[in-house]
Amino acid sequence: MQQKIKAVVFDAYGTLYDVQSVEQAVEVAFPGYGSLITAIWRIKQLEYTWLTSLMGRYEDFWDLTKRALDYTLRSLHLEADAGRVEQIAAAYLSLRPYDDARNCLDRLAPQKLAILSNGSPAMLSDLVKNSSFDRFFDRILSVDRKRVFKPAADAYALVGEELGVTPDEVVFVSSNGFDICGAKNFGFTVVRVARSTDRALDDLPLKVDERALFDLLRGQAETLDHSADVTVRSLAEIPKLFGDQGRSV
Amino acid sequence: MQQKIKAVVFDAYGTLYDVQSVEQAVEVAFPGYGSLITAIWRIKQLEYTWLTSLMGRYEDFWDLTKRALDYTLRSLHLEADAGRVEQIAAAYLSLRPYDDARNCLDRLAPQKLAILSNGSPAMLSDLVKNSSFDRFFDRILSVDRKRVFKPAADAYALVGEELGVTPDEVVFVSSNGFDICGAKNFGFTVVRVARSTDRALDDLPLKVDERALFDLLRGQAETLDHSADVTVRSLAEIPKLFGDQGRSV
Repeated sequence: MQQKIKAVVFDAYGTLYDVQSVEQAVEVAFPGYGSLITAIWRIKQLEYTWLTSLMGRYEDFWDLTKRALDYTLRSLHLEADAGRVEQIAAAYLSLRPYDDARNCLDRLAPQKLAILSNGSPAMLSDLVKNSSFDRFFDRILSVDRKRVFKPAADAYALVGEELGVTPDEVVFVSSNGFDICGAKNFGFTVVRVARSTDRALDDLPLKVDERALFDLLRGQAETLDHSADVTVRSLAEIPKLFGDQGRSV
Repeated sequence: MQQKIKAVVFDAYGTLYDVQSVEQAVEVAFPGYGSLITAIWRIKQLEYTWLTSLMGRYEDFWDLTKRALDYTLRSLHLEADAGRVEQIAAAYLSLRPYDDARNCLDRLAPQKLAILSNGSPAMLSDLVKNSSFDRFFDRILSVDRKRVFKPAADAYALVGEELGVTPDEVVFVSSNGFDICGAKNFGFTVVRVARSTDRALDDLPLKVDERALFDLLRGQAETLDHSADVTVRSLAEIPKLFGDQGRSV
């Protein structure tokens, strides 16, 4: 895979950073609702990126993240004023990186590395600094410059414009089905990180909690065209695709 | 409301017709999974309309309905070949109308009535005939002609082009949050039909099944801008908006 590849570009939310890690902050704010709010919030957050993009009514990811949380709380008849929503939404600024992220990035460091994310520039700046990942990346790219969200082709075009590479020189890494479709549709070589285990599915149809339903809805490869070129179970497998035999760091 | 209004345009799926009514056919095909498949399938079906629209890769609603079912079955590790998927998806051709639909349409009959739906022309033709609703409508409009799905403005523009009316002469009726936003964004007067009861929410956070989670995700008013002008609990309330005092039919 390393031949002709000039940049490895990562999705942030759900790929390098665990969006489920907001659950703790949510649970503190609304005891008993942590898991449910987290699931609905994330599903709605992405819906809102698609709907506003389709309506041609761009708002940045920070605003949509708050709107989605607001929706979630209303749907559950929970109360929170704008300040409280903002405070809870701030959990997105210090998401926990997945365990496999740091080592992967460190081993890939000889490559040109970047992030391409729906996140607003301010959100991404905080996120990358709070995880001390800033040293790994040549560029942190936000779709905000294009005022449209993934999977619109314009969002992915930012990579070439900012890094000076052609689509066939890019490996794009994502765990998000819609993002994998969008990146393939644009012409990148795509690595899918399929972390979700079959744990949640084993005891079907008897018991499906909101986390399991979230995994069912968003954890699987889409059945649209544009499938990933390579599927891995962990970011730890990615350096091997570039010839790294797995030195420990 | 009746002044200057020249057409009342209905959304089909979820507004006149109960998409949950596929559950029976699904349950026969996959015993024990009826409710779960129905929920994931519908959520994914709409996601696929948004994602393909955003990628500029239009496929009609019939194909996306089958793709979404295929996704759902795969996610649950259930098996079905293309013929079986097609057979199950056919449940969308004979959805059960909501109990409040026929009487509402009959009482509104003096108005010019139409459907504007994501459904493909063939799907809508079957659906309307199978429910004997064809006599009510002047036109059945499918977004297929525009090759883009709601809530893109182009989809709603079809109403004016086909009925010869301006946006401020149209009352648009929908139960779907994204559709309400799109129709308001386009400039229609919008009636939201909010059928979902709070039944499912009463016993939170103790127990949320997939139907309740579906209602939480898709049954609420969106917190985007562009809210409905009027919210009703049943289609039965709509004729009153036009001065009909409720003669029984």
